[in-house]
Formats: sequence, structure tokens, C-alpha cells
Amino acid sequence: MDYRIDELSREEVEAERAVYGPFTESLRGLVDAAIRTTVPAEEIRRAQAEVEAITERLRAAPMRTTYGVDLRTDGRGRAWGNAVVGLRNAVAPPLTIVQEGRGVRSSFTLGAAYEGPPGSVHGGVLALVLDQMLGEAAGAGGKPGMTATLTLSYRQRTALGPLTSEAWIERSEGIKTWARGEIHSPDGLTVEAEGLFILPKWARERVESGLLPVESFE
Amino acid sequence: MDYRIDELSREEVEAERAVYGPFTESLRGLVDAAIRTTVPAEEIRRAQAEVEAITERLRAAPMRTTYGVDLRTDGRGRAWGNAVVGLRNAVAPPLTIVQEGRGVRSSFTLGAAYEGPPGSVHGGVLALVLDQMLGEAAGAGGKPGMTATLTLSYRQRTALGPLTSEAWIERSEGIKTWARGEIHSPDGLTVEAEGLFILPKWARERVESGLLPVESFE
Repeated sequence: MDYRIDELSREEVEAERAVYGPFTESLRGLVDAAIRTTVPAEEIRRAQAEVEAITERLRAAPMRTTYGVDLRTDGRGRAWGNAVVGLRNAVAPPLTIVQEGRGVRSSFTLGAAYEGPPGSVHGGVLALVLDQMLGEAAGAGGKPGMTATLTLSYRQRTALGPLTSEAWIERSEGIKTWARGEIHSPDGLTVEAEGLFILPKWARERVESGLLPVESFE
Repeated sequence: MDYRIDELSREEVEAERAVYGPFTESLRGLVDAAIRTTVPAEEIRRAQAEVEAITERLRAAPMRTTYGVDLRTDGRGRAWGNAVVGLRNAVAPPLTIVQEGRGVRSSFTLGAAYEGPPGSVHGGVLALVLDQMLGEAAGAGGKPGMTATLTLSYRQRTALGPLTSEAWIERSEGIKTWARGEIHSPDGLTVEAEGLFILPKWARERVESGLLPVESFE
């Protein structure tokens, strides 16, 4: 499986976004409701039968593989299946990551589906978010790469609810980029991260020819 | 929000598992189908309306908070909302983690919903899995704790598909436990992790009185 060149126009992308964005948001609502419901077992079985009927209809015309990534020549990529930012992926919160100054920033909310200790965000979910943030910071600075190492330092528990994250490039040397990032809750700084990102050989030529996103994914 | 004492008998827990396990599995199928479908927009809108109707019925009787964790005095806890192992959480693959020798082990499959680079597991998802694995290894060794630091070293890309993970305690000193773990794909070792887990003050008394799981979550 490989990266694809995005064959849709800007207008076609927006039309798809208007269909899949709200649909996936409704799925996230269902995932949350399924965790927290206390309705009787027969109601759950009825819901299950209906979910399976919808799934069957959607599977009438599936992609041959996973979603993958659509590359654009405008420096942005479409990663709608991505586990953190994917517009079409109900597992993704999803994060909207914007460039700010020399780095990237995101404000988002994590609910019941991202729980670890009671009422708290799972430590691994915070690592998942920070891996994406640091990777996008590297890309936003013109130094995209794949994660080589990632170190997380947990300063205090992170309550489920509204959060913000920032990430930026610390330094870079050739194909290596070191990035740092943080997550803040209303209680203050909760997690710090530091990562090394390396641009693999196969990707270097593409970045040079403008065919691998160096800004960010949407 | 806090840990709860599990008030269900073993039989009642199994009856709930038989209802919620298959339902959540059907939701995981829907999440996957939604990422990969190419059906027309009107079919997506119809699916959305049906998903919202199911959600509304499930929300007729919601828990007051998130799922949390049910504690048992038999050394195991029920974490059905957990983002990695949660039986009722469609975001979770979910992993079934078993004790083996001095550590823990899990075999699982990650599909389209866990994608980062095309055809590959998101680096952050691997961190999410390893955080849970190392934490459970610490617990299985009688040294449960919260993640203080976690370091991931990515050795090669991890293809979506069948994976295994192992984790074990490296050493411990009082309330501090160092654990290590790995993820293997059919291509071999893909990620190594090392973490420090510390048992917070509020939890020490509970572990001593048998009210915080020291084996694992289910």
C-alpha cells in the first residue's frame, strides 16, 4: 500500500467533507452512548441488529484496502482514516491541528472513549495525541519524518474534558528532527513529550518534488 | 470520579459480557466500514439518521459519568470503558492481555481504524498499546502503578494486521517499577518500550487491602 495523489478538486473534497464529517461525528456519539448506556439487554440486542444492517449496506462498496493518505501538491495531505486526525475515523477524537508561530497547536475534548484510570485520559491516548502533534510540528517546520523515538513524561493526571496541545521543532540536522510538545488541562501542564523524527530514504525525493505534505494533514 | 467496588456476581458479569461484547464488536465493524465505504452520499445520510436514532435510544438511560473501573477483591478489575482493553469501548481494539511467565502477553489485530502512514499502524497507537501492556506487566508482578515516563523506540514500520506484544518488569524499588515491552509483526520486532510506573499515595492503602487490581484488567 502506498500514498495516493489526491484526484479530487478542492470543491469535491469539501463536498465529501460535508457528508462524512457529520456522519463520523454521529458514530462518535454512538460509541460514547454504547459505553455509558444502562438500557435493558433486549434494547442492546435490537441496537446490535440495526448496527449490523447499516454496516452491511456500507460494505456493499468497500475500498480495496485501508483509507491511506491522499497527497496534494499544496503542501497539505488528506489523512481521513488517520487514528488521531481522521475525519472519517470514529476512533479519532479527531484533532484539528493548526500552525501557530513556529509550531502547531490543537484544542480538543476527550470523553468516555479515551478513559484509562476513572475520569482520566488513558496515558497511552496522551502518547497517541503527542506522537501526531510532534510529527506535524516537524512537518510544519519543513522537516517531515517518521517517529524514531518518543519519550513521554507524565506530570499529573489528565482529567477527561477540554485539553490543549502544542508542539514545536527543537532542532534539526539533515534528515533528523527533534521536536517537543505538551498537553495542558484546566489543571495546567499534564504531559511533556520529546521525539526524534527521521525522513526515510523513500520519502526524501517526494518531499523535494512537493509530493509529501510538509505542512499538515487535514 | 473514583474507582467503584464491583457489585455484580461472577455470573452477572458473564451475562453482561455476553450482551455487550458482541454489541461493541458490531460497532467496531461499523467504524471500519465507515472509513472504507464508497457508497453514494444519500446512503451515508440514511446511515447517519439511523445511527442517531440508535444513539438516542441508548441515551435514554445513561450513566452519570464515564464508565470508570470496577474493582474486585480477587485481584482483577473490570475496565470495560478502557481505551485499550475495554469490552464496551469501540475505540479499543480491544486487547486481551494474559499473564505468561513473569510478564504479560497479547495477540491482537489492528485494522483501518488504527492507521497512520498508509497501510501502517499509527506510531501513537503502538504507544497506546505499550502503555497498557507495561502497566499491566507492573500490576501482574504485584507492583501496579501509574505511568510516570514512557519511552518508545520504533525499529521499523508496523504493518496493519496481526500483532503480538509482550511486557515484563525489569526491576522495582519501593513504589517505583521499571517495565519493558515489545511489539512484533510478521516482519519481526517493530517497537520497543521502557517505562517507569509509580504507585500514587492514595492507591497504596488500597493495594494493601486488596482493593486495587494487582493482576490485570478484563
